[in-house]
Amino acid sequence: MSDFSQRWTTRLHQGFPLLKAMQVQLLGDQSGWQLAAPYGPNQNDHHSAFGGSISTLATIAGWLWVSELAGPGVNVVIQTGSTHFLSPLETDLIAQVCPPEASQTARFLHALQRKGRARMALEITVGDAMGQIAARFNAQYVAG
Amino acid sequence: MSDFSQRWTTRLHQGFPLLKAMQVQLLGDQSGWQLAAPYGPNQNDHHSAFGGSISTLATIAGWLWVSELAGPGVNVVIQTGSTHFLSPLETDLIAQVCPPEASQTARFLHALQRKGRARMALEITVGDAMGQIAARFNAQYVAG
Repeated sequence: MSDFSQRWTTRLHQGFPLLKAMQVQLLGDQSGWQLAAPYGPNQNDHHSAFGGSISTLATIAGWLWVSELAGPGVNVVIQTGSTHFLSPLETDLIAQVCPPEASQTARFLHALQRKGRARMALEITVGDAMGQIAARFNAQYVAG
Repeated sequence: MSDFSQRWTTRLHQGFPLLKAMQVQLLGDQSGWQLAAPYGPNQNDHHSAFGGSISTLATIAGWLWVSELAGPGVNVVIQTGSTHFLSPLETDLIAQVCPPEASQTARFLHALQRKGRARMALEITVGDAMGQIAARFNAQYVAG
């Protein structure tokens, strides 16, 4: 486990009791990462992954991405989040942030520096370890 | 605690490990109910309710509402769910389904009977016990 993974996994578990219950874990390192959660604690009563777990994993993946971009000491909150459930997921859950355009990232950092506040729209997918996508999550975060 | 409350609270805890971890409880009875979750297990690292808990509580409130309307033996799944976070919530969480128009309910039941499948759009609010709304959740469920 990388230092990056260890640091974030610990922070998520200590700061968010629900993410500890979900057994959320960051896989990878700063150059490329995913958020994973095992199937067991995240199943519903119909033998597939619970929609609440899918949305929650995506919510925190986006929050973590914007928090990393904004840097330490900046508070990030979610403003809106929409999940489209595409197909049932019967395995461990993997959330992956779709990298935005470089120009969007630059605008965000510029606004944050100039106004002390900036918005970031992100798409996050949730699926299995083979890359099969079960849900798409579109969200807007505010940093400041 | 009413039989209705006892039955649903037990079903949610047995079928969904995440809802047990959230300590979700149904308050009220068939004629009027809310879903509650205590602040403790649902807080974030900034001393307010976690957005993932808010969306999850709303998701399951709507699912429960449609399941009750559809009746036993009908499978209900969420298709889309969008949360607008309006203000931080620093208390126990209460989710409340906004009752749809009677005509919408009738259309749902008619389609379910005729085609064996029907869609239902719902709005659910999440807030505190005093009725202060912290988030609005709009979702579409499919029964069949």
